[in-house]
Amino acid sequence: MAKKEVVRIGLLGLGTVGFGVYKTLKLQLENMEAKTGSRIEIKRILVLKIADFADRVDDVAILTENADDILDDPEIDIVVEVIGGTKAAYEFQKKALLNGKHVVTANKDLVATEGHNLIEMASERGLDYSFEAAVAGGIPVIRPLRRCLAGNNITEILGIVNGTTNFILTKMAKENMSYQEALKIASELGYAEANPTSDVEGLDAARKVAIMASLAFHSDVRFKDVYHEGITSLTEDDIRNAGELGCVIKLMGVTRQIDGAVEAAVYPMLIPKDHMMASVEDSFNAVFIHGDAVDDVMLYGRGAGEMPTASAIVGDIFETVRNINNDCTGRLGSSVYRQLPIRPQEETVNKFFVRMRVPDRCGVLSEVVSVFAKNNVSINSVIQKIGLEKPDEAEIVITTEKISEKNFRHSLDELKALDSINEISSVIRVY
Amino acid sequence: MAKKEVVRIGLLGLGTVGFGVYKTLKLQLENMEAKTGSRIEIKRILVLKIADFADRVDDVAILTENADDILDDPEIDIVVEVIGGTKAAYEFQKKALLNGKHVVTANKDLVATEGHNLIEMASERGLDYSFEAAVAGGIPVIRPLRRCLAGNNITEILGIVNGTTNFILTKMAKENMSYQEALKIASELGYAEANPTSDVEGLDAARKVAIMASLAFHSDVRFKDVYHEGITSLTEDDIRNAGELGCVIKLMGVTRQIDGAVEAAVYPMLIPKDHMMASVEDSFNAVFIHGDAVDDVMLYGRGAGEMPTASAIVGDIFETVRNINNDCTGRLGSSVYRQLPIRPQEETVNKFFVRMRVPDRCGVLSEVVSVFAKNNVSINSVIQKIGLEKPDEAEIVITTEKISEKNFRHSLDELKALDSINEISSVIRVY
Repeated sequence: MAKKEVVRIGLLGLGTVGFGVYKTLKLQLENMEAKTGSRIEIKRILVLKIADFADRVDDVAILTENADDILDDPEIDIVVEVIGGTKAAYEFQKKALLNGKHVVTANKDLVATEGHNLIEMASERGLDYSFEAAVAGGIPVIRPLRRCLAGNNITEILGIVNGTTNFILTKMAKENMSYQEALKIASELGYAEANPTSDVEGLDAARKVAIMASLAFHSDVRFKDVYHEGITSLTEDDIRNAGELGCVIKLMGVTRQIDGAVEAAVYPMLIPKDHMMASVEDSFNAVFIHGDAVDDVMLYGRGAGEMPTASAIVGDIFETVRNINNDCTGRLGSSVYRQLPIRPQEETVNKFFVRMRVPDRCGVLSEVVSVFAKNNVSINSVIQKIGLEKPDEAEIVITTEKISEKNFRHSLDELKALDSINEISSVIRVY
Repeated sequence: MAKKEVVRIGLLGLGTVGFGVYKTLKLQLENMEAKTGSRIEIKRILVLKIADFADRVDDVAILTENADDILDDPEIDIVVEVIGGTKAAYEFQKKALLNGKHVVTANKDLVATEGHNLIEMASERGLDYSFEAAVAGGIPVIRPLRRCLAGNNITEILGIVNGTTNFILTKMAKENMSYQEALKIASELGYAEANPTSDVEGLDAARKVAIMASLAFHSDVRFKDVYHEGITSLTEDDIRNAGELGCVIKLMGVTRQIDGAVEAAVYPMLIPKDHMMASVEDSFNAVFIHGDAVDDVMLYGRGAGEMPTASAIVGDIFETVRNINNDCTGRLGSSVYRQLPIRPQEETVNKFFVRMRVPDRCGVLSEVVSVFAKNNVSINSVIQKIGLEKPDEAEIVITTEKISEKNFRHSLDELKALDSINEISSVIRVY
């Protein structure tokens, strides 16, 4: 079959990731043809204002402020969408597919909501739709999940999939910083955005969990289905307590298939220090996958950044070009072939760590323990510390066995209503 | 295009891995069609003696002692070769390809010697040739290297790719065992074979390094090109010394592309405890890849065993079936498109740890250091310990900077010729 001499790319966006793609394709100039069978050229790049980006490219003529210059150009084979967001990006991707163009994207927001539809739309038209960069940047996750591990029934994925929060938690643990101090440094280093909500509240991680869950369990799991808590309420005391229990705190994306339902959530979690996930520090990401045949697999690396994300995008571009040259685009399609129900978070079963301040007097501990007992919450360990902050106060730290989240929450509500509880300081799940 | 209703497999071998494939395909019965478009059936299985394997299968009629029952059967689409070795396996694979059958294999010995030729032979005939299981068992390595990371110029791969030796080294480090004690436990647990030479002398790891180097550097690197040392001479003293330097000892597969040449080797190495590779314990494997765009990526999991290896093989089978159904087999072909020279080990540059016993008298240390200086071997640290074993002996432990291996070996030869050196107890490279 005839190879295409030149495959032309239209790049939507020339921000951090877009510029990374531009540079990475340059670095591959000598090798791309041997690797894919074609020369690959960026024909046009969409930017908001040409003047702002003129110094980023060799030839300013390839810049345009009009998306249709790309989407309507019959010479353009692949549209690479790296502007992010869900509105314009969705319209652009849809138009690209309707015009017969393959799509490569890093847009987790969009894939986590409309991914299933876009993949179907592409597949029906024999087009490739690739999004390796949407989860954990440069780390190979999507392809391993869809292909290498296809021979498994995957039952669990645990992921540290947000670099900003992992950087903050590492700083808090290693350098005894407060959350605010660590966030400030993350901002200064460019890890945290001006408005860090999406990272620190777990939204970004929840999007990646939705994408991974859909692929792993072959069921349409969307962002709205993922329960999420962030790291904003974690304190130095929590970090210290975790350390005393031989653990570190990580913001984990967790998704499981149990008894025919999917659980999908993001929350801070105590991870034992000897678990591989505990060694994932700074802005690194890792995804831990459990399958019935492969047992445990971990994929680790840089989950964000200009060049690592570009690595994943260019890998997808190369694969698309190979598929074009072998006349087998649109081959993979949607891997959703069933619809499993989503189990609400309060119906899941978890271990918990809970810390509370109580008056230092006889009988309080017994009262607390009996509330848990009444609600069928089995306790694993109880530590009472006296006079840590105030002389007449004690701190109770409890870890539970695996228990119903509903029963646990009910216990907390009852405890809060008691006179003998000054404050429930923190509640963190335990691996 | 028409999907094939049933794709038929001929399985060569029903040992540990073969039986894993048999079981894993059963576990996938409900899902295989949704995942690949076809029902997948094992039509025949080659065994040495049917009587020995009759109780392993539901229907003894699928067993045969004659390979041609599989290789000449026009109904069989995919031959899965898991008998190992290079002679019969080579003939079988060749015949399978000549008869138009796709090949999936876990045979690292064969892929590390004849892989390039077999891939070419398959590709010329429009056939798939897949070997994800040949490197690091269930861990996705081949596909990430060839596809996800294709947008990178890969410069270095470090791998713990032999589970037996990693298990032994972990036991030595964590439980203060001798090499012999640890080997004995590895044998009892089935990790080490009756003749453990291939594992403990680094041959098995060297084969995997050859395969990874070929894919990463797009150049034909074979087993014979890989320098290798094993772990048989490592002592408890070495492990203890490593610990004192904040390191662990791992048997590392190392391959680099430097200045247009490929370096490929297997040897024990001191790895700092805070490096992710140091956390890879017991029989786990890990592959650490450095690329110009992605920076560092690590892939971790079970590098051997019945089900993890079967996971990789079934992933390859599924991919082949998808390709059959999309009429695009033979698409990937050989990724070798240049021939880089192999740099002999003595022309490489490394850091070394060297430990020697010397008479405890004035001037010896100065003599040792001057030999290194004369040979342009820069020293990083020197520790002298007196009277450890014998009252009149001292131990000198030296770590070098990155220095020419040739100069270093020359220094050792000169040191050995000196009266003032009782013994050079160990020489280990340092990360």
